[in-house]
Amino acid sequence: MIKQRINALRELMSKENISVYIVTSADYNQSAYVGGYFKLREFLTGFTGSNGTLVLTCDKAVLYTDSRYYLQAAQELLGSGIELFKAGEKETPEITDFITDNVPYGGTAAGDGRTFSASFADTLSLKLAKKNARLLYDCDLGGALWIEGRPEMPKEKAIIHDIKYAGVSAEEKIQWLRDEIKKLGADAHLITALDDIAWLLNIRGNDIHCLPAVLSYVFISQDELLLFVDADKITGAVKTHLLLLGVKVLPYDCIYDFLKNYNGSCKMLLLHRKKVNYRLCRAAMCRFDIIDRMNPTTLKKAIKNETEILNARRAHICDGKAVCEVIAYLKKNVAKNKITEMDVARMLSKHRREAGAVDDSFNAICGYAEHGAIVHYSANEKTNKQLEPRGLLLMDSGGQYKEGTTDVTRTVALGGMTAFERKCFTLVLKGMLALGEVKFKKGLTGANLDIIGRVPLYEHGLDYGHATGHGVGSFLSVHEYPNGFSAVNDCVFEAGMITSDEPGVYIEGQFGVRIENLMLCKEDDDGFLKFEFLTMVPIDKEAIDFSLMNDEDIHRLNEYHAMVRKNILPVISDEAREYLINATEEI
Amino acid sequence: MIKQRINALRELMSKENISVYIVTSADYNQSAYVGGYFKLREFLTGFTGSNGTLVLTCDKAVLYTDSRYYLQAAQELLGSGIELFKAGEKETPEITDFITDNVPYGGTAAGDGRTFSASFADTLSLKLAKKNARLLYDCDLGGALWIEGRPEMPKEKAIIHDIKYAGVSAEEKIQWLRDEIKKLGADAHLITALDDIAWLLNIRGNDIHCLPAVLSYVFISQDELLLFVDADKITGAVKTHLLLLGVKVLPYDCIYDFLKNYNGSCKMLLLHRKKVNYRLCRAAMCRFDIIDRMNPTTLKKAIKNETEILNARRAHICDGKAVCEVIAYLKKNVAKNKITEMDVARMLSKHRREAGAVDDSFNAICGYAEHGAIVHYSANEKTNKQLEPRGLLLMDSGGQYKEGTTDVTRTVALGGMTAFERKCFTLVLKGMLALGEVKFKKGLTGANLDIIGRVPLYEHGLDYGHATGHGVGSFLSVHEYPNGFSAVNDCVFEAGMITSDEPGVYIEGQFGVRIENLMLCKEDDDGFLKFEFLTMVPIDKEAIDFSLMNDEDIHRLNEYHAMVRKNILPVISDEAREYLINATEEI
Repeated sequence: MIKQRINALRELMSKENISVYIVTSADYNQSAYVGGYFKLREFLTGFTGSNGTLVLTCDKAVLYTDSRYYLQAAQELLGSGIELFKAGEKETPEITDFITDNVPYGGTAAGDGRTFSASFADTLSLKLAKKNARLLYDCDLGGALWIEGRPEMPKEKAIIHDIKYAGVSAEEKIQWLRDEIKKLGADAHLITALDDIAWLLNIRGNDIHCLPAVLSYVFISQDELLLFVDADKITGAVKTHLLLLGVKVLPYDCIYDFLKNYNGSCKMLLLHRKKVNYRLCRAAMCRFDIIDRMNPTTLKKAIKNETEILNARRAHICDGKAVCEVIAYLKKNVAKNKITEMDVARMLSKHRREAGAVDDSFNAICGYAEHGAIVHYSANEKTNKQLEPRGLLLMDSGGQYKEGTTDVTRTVALGGMTAFERKCFTLVLKGMLALGEVKFKKGLTGANLDIIGRVPLYEHGLDYGHATGHGVGSFLSVHEYPNGFSAVNDCVFEAGMITSDEPGVYIEGQFGVRIENLMLCKEDDDGFLKFEFLTMVPIDKEAIDFSLMNDEDIHRLNEYHAMVRKNILPVISDEAREYLINATEEI
Repeated sequence: MIKQRINALRELMSKENISVYIVTSADYNQSAYVGGYFKLREFLTGFTGSNGTLVLTCDKAVLYTDSRYYLQAAQELLGSGIELFKAGEKETPEITDFITDNVPYGGTAAGDGRTFSASFADTLSLKLAKKNARLLYDCDLGGALWIEGRPEMPKEKAIIHDIKYAGVSAEEKIQWLRDEIKKLGADAHLITALDDIAWLLNIRGNDIHCLPAVLSYVFISQDELLLFVDADKITGAVKTHLLLLGVKVLPYDCIYDFLKNYNGSCKMLLLHRKKVNYRLCRAAMCRFDIIDRMNPTTLKKAIKNETEILNARRAHICDGKAVCEVIAYLKKNVAKNKITEMDVARMLSKHRREAGAVDDSFNAICGYAEHGAIVHYSANEKTNKQLEPRGLLLMDSGGQYKEGTTDVTRTVALGGMTAFERKCFTLVLKGMLALGEVKFKKGLTGANLDIIGRVPLYEHGLDYGHATGHGVGSFLSVHEYPNGFSAVNDCVFEAGMITSDEPGVYIEGQFGVRIENLMLCKEDDDGFLKFEFLTMVPIDKEAIDFSLMNDEDIHRLNEYHAMVRKNILPVISDEAREYLINATEEI
């Protein structure tokens, strides 16, 4: 099937004289996770991961993906004739170089310009120009092949995100944004990041799996606020809410023509080329001068206000209760009952709903034994493993609560463990605790802090291929830009940011360990910054090699467990009570 | 006197219709430390630190300097009418913004374009352009005021840096460089970094205090190698050496005309705009297209070869002996004899010469008690303090050995200490040892690693305003670009690099602590990188608060001291033997 689709795409390319065709995994808003309608790259390649780009020539078919998906992609691409290119590895060519190398002098590379960013297109166009080649960006060959069975564009109703959760009114946010736009020397601002739009207008939706946002664009100036969105989604209270904010609703697709034909008084348009799709950017350039900068909303949204922080703590208590109950059940029943990876994922969802979640914040990753080594593993009917009373189960999951978004990973010992499993678990734990404990000066970035989570693993020649942490939204995206921990993250930490702390280690074919807490960045009395753990789930002491834990490690773990017990014991179910008490007992 | 000079400069500015005049601390080769002839900024302001820029308008006189010099500059500028601007502080405007703000619309800013880099000039020109103002860079008003008493341009003879120290012949280096130039798509390359030139040609000199380099420029293509240098410096064996390398010697100043009037076959010229002076860069642009990139020699020079590494270890044994002997003397005699800060500096120089050093690698910083808090303190007749048998003495010093350049800081307890002094000393030590011990993955930068040296201080709300470390040359610059530890250093570590590890803490008006070892970066068996301490001087156990040291800290210190003893005991003088044995005794 995949081979047929690839061949059909090649035929279209040949008709249009296109040498290289690119299919990314993005939607038109450059979201990290996308709705079914936008899963064209998955349709064409069979690879189901969230990140990957197909590059097709007349004789090569290549999928670029990142280290989270190396193993999964290798499996899913088997027999497809598509070659896996591991992005980020030394021997892998930059994608723009690979494309350029495969375009003949004077030739054409093409793709749907709605599905890649302006900065990607800039880099590629520059390289193509050296071969007198061009980038055709107004072309959706893949879409033409996917008529039957393609999911509809989402149609979910928008809802109001109440001020009791948002903390600040949309009026206030809009006024603040207009001031920022002025300060930056712009007349207007184009926002395409869905979570920025939801945050700004205090609305939520359900257009994208696990992301409570509304598929839309915003154009805002000092006297206009246009929301490009399917009008069917805006009804009832939301309609009134937007009306009172002075928001004018226009059809989602009309943004391109609106920009191309704009004849109002605004000249300088603020937009973030790294995040805005290329077609939109080109449309904007017809009528505006561009100021290329991160959306002011992006940073402001990352710095949670007092209300959001109080609510986040509440969300994490509900979430902790749910996850504790599932772990308690597993520990008690793994030797007696048949439990599979998919059962665990279902249980997590169920307990979260009972605890108050509106939705999951992403598809739970429940990987037993060697599946734990697949960083973004998602069990399906074919791979679904039954748990046994030995080794490690890695569970990475989260919930969407109106009070906040959660994301927690626990690796749980189901019975006997090898010394190497224990060692890996303990080193990951030491890194996680050290990063959670670190106090640091204002001005530092994720690139400065990332190593703290890795040092204990490095000491033993171990490491992990992913970032140590990412930002998390308030009832929004579970992967929120720009804060995070990685060797290259240049976002400066500020009090109010919520970031995950999730070192790991992955032994291919054997097991995986990851331990993840969300942390709130706070200012200390002396002006330094530090973190507060928000996640409230015990860490499995049965998996620890205590010979590797020094006094500071033990002290940190005891303090964390005392806090978990204090917060979760009052709300835990009777069945899980004994587990929680034992799990949080001081060492 | 300073006021008169400033007024005289203002008169010249007014004659030339210049609104803002800039005097930097650089020589024409953008060296970090400069010869007396180039100390124009010091002549005009009275500030003797190595880094600072005077910005003069008709009614403002401002000196920008960095955190190392805040205290010193404040003292030296007293009564001069020159205001101190602390570069890097939040409230301090960017220097290019300050200049631009003080130039009227259509006005002129000016300075000697030989003393600032092309990238600085680019930034400034861009900002000035917005006010329709211009940068006059062919103008040396300050120089016109400094005729009498100005030191001569240096006249020291160049010498050959023997292959037994250099490890690789100049022929081989030149061939390698020609290959690199070709790979980068350039036809020729302009080198102005003095240490790069000395490294490339295996020559050394004595034109700059403490830096054994020869004031010169190099222009190299596939068939030419021109050295622009005062011909009097090139005599005897060096003349033959250069002749055999095919080097053509031309006068130092002729580089400008050579570039402006070049009519050879080279078109693409490689140079590093950040490091080449602006006038040179403008001259080059008359006839060449510029490829702006770090000199290939800069990175290659930073990665020491096997011979340089073996020699560095030897240099550090000589240096360790010298410093140990001075500390032993101080410990024994501080209560009995009159010893001043300047005495200590002289003793360090003397013992180093006896141990084989050719020169100091910088002016020793010997700061007793509150003087220790002045990061780059240099004692003079006015400030020279007598040591007392209490508190801390900070000694930062180094030597130039043919085998290598050294740089070591020890803070020594001269007698009774306060609990706070002990605490600060211990936290600094913990950071220093932790960074020395860290093992890490290839690909990490100084920005990724810097925090390791700071975490113990951060924990107690303390920090230091300087980088944690800098690169060090092989019988070359004691501050060698590009490797180092700081929150923004983006140089990737490689095996063979030598870098300092020098956390500190400075309590204004009370005391300062800094502990500095040089470290060699090495590859471990598993492909990870780690460091080896090169510096061989005990750390003062009498200053440690052992309640803050955990088992790992103690283990690290014991291991280090065992190594120091093993290397230094065989060479130490009889007088210092007992001190060394006690100081390196296991805890």
